[in-house]
Amino acid sequence: MPTKTDTKGHEAQIRELIDDWADALRAKDVDRLMSHYSANIVSFDLAPPLQYQGADSLRKSLQTWFSTFRGPVGFEIRGLDITADEAVAFSRSLNRITGSRTNGEETDVWVRATVCYSRSAGKWVITHEHTSVPLYMDGSEKAALDLKP
Amino acid sequence: MPTKTDTKGHEAQIRELIDDWADALRAKDVDRLMSHYSANIVSFDLAPPLQYQGADSLRKSLQTWFSTFRGPVGFEIRGLDITADEAVAFSRSLNRITGSRTNGEETDVWVRATVCYSRSAGKWVITHEHTSVPLYMDGSEKAALDLKP
Repeated sequence: MPTKTDTKGHEAQIRELIDDWADALRAKDVDRLMSHYSANIVSFDLAPPLQYQGADSLRKSLQTWFSTFRGPVGFEIRGLDITADEAVAFSRSLNRITGSRTNGEETDVWVRATVCYSRSAGKWVITHEHTSVPLYMDGSEKAALDLKP
Repeated sequence: MPTKTDTKGHEAQIRELIDDWADALRAKDVDRLMSHYSANIVSFDLAPPLQYQGADSLRKSLQTWFSTFRGPVGFEIRGLDITADEAVAFSRSLNRITGSRTNGEETDVWVRATVCYSRSAGKWVITHEHTSVPLYMDGSEKAALDLKP
């Protein structure tokens, strides 16, 4: 069984992973971002389809998304909560995405993020992630893009 | 460190939890559903707000949602994948929700589900869950309710 120190060590390692991942996202650095994913990543992303399977699929999606931002991506993480054992972990947070898009629009939206990790050969990698906004239940079928934590 | 047998045992326990949880959902049995959640559950649900915190909040949300179905809720789980260690686990799947609503509409929608578990005193409970549909990136701000796996 993990000792208290071990468990804290894993949490700290995942916090470092998230910090580096977020810096890479802000800088639109796809290679650095992808270094944190398993080759078998399954991603439930903001945009369709229902799921992206595999690192190549995720990489293409990130490249397309980054190309819609004129400059860097603004990215704030709030309420980060990490649960880690020896080889399995998950985290949740509310993330704010901001920035100027190439179509002239300004993006400013809060999303929910759940990220799941596995540790293999001493290294934590992301094996599953889920990012979304809620859906208004008023019959409009509109996504809830104006919510704040 | 967990043995192969231990790890498989935990996966099997979580599969049983999910089976019972799904049966309870179909039967709109709120008490049975809630028996699988931690008191500190944080839920990123289909409907706003961004997050539901605590079992009381989730219970009220489920009661409201169930009251919009005339009969039972149709619920199919596809592509279930479970990752479990000794005390931390997560699962992902695509779930189909069907049924007749009290407003006369027929619901038939595929959602993405990520569920996170912790084991305490020998019992697995859900401490976090995230359910969503994607968002069309065509400027319509519409939720993607017509996708199929």
